[in-house]
Amino acid sequence: MARKSAKINVVPQAILETASNLFIKRGYEGTSMQDIAQELGISRSALYYYFKNKEEILASLTEGLTIAAQQLASQVVEKGKAPEEALRELVHQHAKLILYRPVQFRVVERAEGSLPQEQQKIAESARRILLQKFTEVIQRGIDDGRFRLVNAKMASFAIIGMCNWTAWWFKADGAKTAEEIAEMLADFSLHALERGEVKKGAKVGVDESLRMLEENLSQLKEVIDTQNRIRQ
Amino acid sequence: MARKSAKINVVPQAILETASNLFIKRGYEGTSMQDIAQELGISRSALYYYFKNKEEILASLTEGLTIAAQQLASQVVEKGKAPEEALRELVHQHAKLILYRPVQFRVVERAEGSLPQEQQKIAESARRILLQKFTEVIQRGIDDGRFRLVNAKMASFAIIGMCNWTAWWFKADGAKTAEEIAEMLADFSLHALERGEVKKGAKVGVDESLRMLEENLSQLKEVIDTQNRIRQ
Repeated sequence: MARKSAKINVVPQAILETASNLFIKRGYEGTSMQDIAQELGISRSALYYYFKNKEEILASLTEGLTIAAQQLASQVVEKGKAPEEALRELVHQHAKLILYRPVQFRVVERAEGSLPQEQQKIAESARRILLQKFTEVIQRGIDDGRFRLVNAKMASFAIIGMCNWTAWWFKADGAKTAEEIAEMLADFSLHALERGEVKKGAKVGVDESLRMLEENLSQLKEVIDTQNRIRQ
Repeated sequence: MARKSAKINVVPQAILETASNLFIKRGYEGTSMQDIAQELGISRSALYYYFKNKEEILASLTEGLTIAAQQLASQVVEKGKAPEEALRELVHQHAKLILYRPVQFRVVERAEGSLPQEQQKIAESARRILLQKFTEVIQRGIDDGRFRLVNAKMASFAIIGMCNWTAWWFKADGAKTAEEIAEMLADFSLHALERGEVKKGAKVGVDESLRMLEENLSQLKEVIDTQNRIRQ
């Protein structure tokens, strides 16, 4: 695992970033190695030193996102934290992976059909494992009675989609930082899944607390009434 | 408005669907009108009767999704319903628009750069209005004290993204129908935004009701203690 992460870091991000911008602007097919070298202001041979061809650039983009996403998620789940904490970490991490490289993520989504079949399969499997890891944590939360009874796989798709779509709207120079957006998405996901009871630390006043108590009481009354009716 | 909707319905969906499949498989640039006619098993002149060229097909796809999304959302907001109900309807509608045409949505996302500049601007403005409509409803929910205090624009991006991303995973022949997924996403969004109090109609037993009451009471005690400390 350490070797893998090191490899990802060694790959020159500048080439990947410039190539991604060109792929989005002119299309993957419409961009040549010559174009990439020119845009970077380096010689073609300098570029070839890092990447043999366009497919290698695309494969590296896929590795840095799709496969990295799966590895990061697997690491979180291995820690065996409580479901809330694990989910918060999963969302945070996955969102940030994309928020720091939105254009690269869009290239991977668009151009995956251009990858060699074998690498397409690897990416496909990485995406499946990512989904499994989210599903696993959410299902554990449901089983523990901490999350609502939802379809864990559908909820995972919803959360991953929310993170992925940031690639289409996030602006690094916008009003919110990547960190703030990741935090918001984690918070959003947890609230969507936590059971409908008073959330600890919620800021409420006496009036609202009393209103909640009243609602709780009338709900309890209803539950008891229903049970009495069933017994009769 | 009625004329607009009628126009969308008249456009032959079969052409749009077949063209979209080819655009995804071979790329927009890599697909000719001849390819589309051949795949449909019709003559080129029959195809030209409906669309003058590829750009017109792409423009029609954009109209049927991006512009339709904005129109549908605007109609929901005009009804002036309560925030919860309005948000439920917004999510339902937007999700279904995409769930019924996932491949077309992906084409619109990928090939928008190939639209004439003027039409790109129209699509851009439609997306901005869609975001505004979601934001407006969420903000109203916050102001009314029905939704949690969140950044309404960020929450809108999150929800729209969740819906949009279904285009990448939904299978019409899968375990869940489009209707069920739309319902799940609406439910997910509402739970994410509703204040942390007992949700009406939640299925709980006597034990859990009692536990919630206890939690409510200890929260009330905390609120009162804090206020007393402040007064001292």
